[in-house]
Amino acid sequence: MRILGIDPGSLVTGYGVVERRGAGLHHIAHGTLRQPRSAPLATRLAAIHAGIASVIEAHRPGLVVVEGVFVAVNPRAALVLGQARGVALAAAAAAGLRVDELSPQAVKLAVVGTGAAHKLQVQRMVRRLLALDVTPPQDAADALAVALCAAQQSPRLTLAAAVAELGASRTLGRARRPRGTARAGRFVLRRIR
Amino acid sequence: MRILGIDPGSLVTGYGVVERRGAGLHHIAHGTLRQPRSAPLATRLAAIHAGIASVIEAHRPGLVVVEGVFVAVNPRAALVLGQARGVALAAAAAAGLRVDELSPQAVKLAVVGTGAAHKLQVQRMVRRLLALDVTPPQDAADALAVALCAAQQSPRLTLAAAVAELGASRTLGRARRPRGTARAGRFVLRRIR
Repeated sequence: MRILGIDPGSLVTGYGVVERRGAGLHHIAHGTLRQPRSAPLATRLAAIHAGIASVIEAHRPGLVVVEGVFVAVNPRAALVLGQARGVALAAAAAAGLRVDELSPQAVKLAVVGTGAAHKLQVQRMVRRLLALDVTPPQDAADALAVALCAAQQSPRLTLAAAVAELGASRTLGRARRPRGTARAGRFVLRRIR
Repeated sequence: MRILGIDPGSLVTGYGVVERRGAGLHHIAHGTLRQPRSAPLATRLAAIHAGIASVIEAHRPGLVVVEGVFVAVNPRAALVLGQARGVALAAAAAAGLRVDELSPQAVKLAVVGTGAAHKLQVQRMVRRLLALDVTPPQDAADALAVALCAAQQSPRLTLAAAVAELGASRTLGRARRPRGTARAGRFVLRRIR
């Protein structure tokens, strides 16, 4: 089972692909689709659409997951995010894939052990959980975190155990590992409506 | 010069194509892309993307224009609108077309003669200006209005004169035709950034 996580943005869209094999989680790919600020919005959106389509073509995920959006975000930011998010969702559906969403808190809690984790904590934990040689860029790490959180929806999955084993609470300061990882299993993937 | 106007929405997206021939404006096509409410969001967005691509393929416009968005709209509505708008813009850019936007007030002022025109007034004026046999559905009429407003950016264009000739101020109640139509020529198409 391959899962593609996407962190959409009109300038930088992160993506990450993880694969579950038995009880293990494996890194397949990650990256960022960067659009030049000077390009017209419509051109950037078309490039995001084409870029996600290429990632799907190359890595053949069985499920696509994006982060849900804070309702508290301001209208202008929501519009801009919505535009990038819309093309990412459309590209996934055009490839015949199911698209689910997870709340940002659920993702952080599952991966770091606290729903209030910082970006840097997410980057570090994603690197460790997937045994990467280098820390992924922020947007790609967020996308990998979404994919990891979705992957742990399986009862056989050991993400919570992996987080515990890594001693997230010790290495990541304020992260409260045992409580967070225990809770993480309860989150449910939500079909986007 | 053919112009495609789009009124994006996650459930109903209106489109309208007008053509300028000399000083005249002609109706080419209009319609609505309706998505079943029961379909997942990503599927609906993919259908909007494919639908706009088909309209472009069929009618070969040289310019695409959408309405700008009220900043005052609430964040959730802005996100939903942004998603539909994003795929429409991406489909246009993927076809190599320039995409501009016009404020809703500019569109209403140009077509009806007042920036505070009601939906029904827009529908009626679009029908009259393009000499249609029937009144177009609301979302298609809005899209045609956007295309008409964009078309009048040419100094040789006679939309303001056509509105005046139809006696918009008399037939449409509170619409203040002479002031509105005089102002309309000043609106400038804005490249979306």
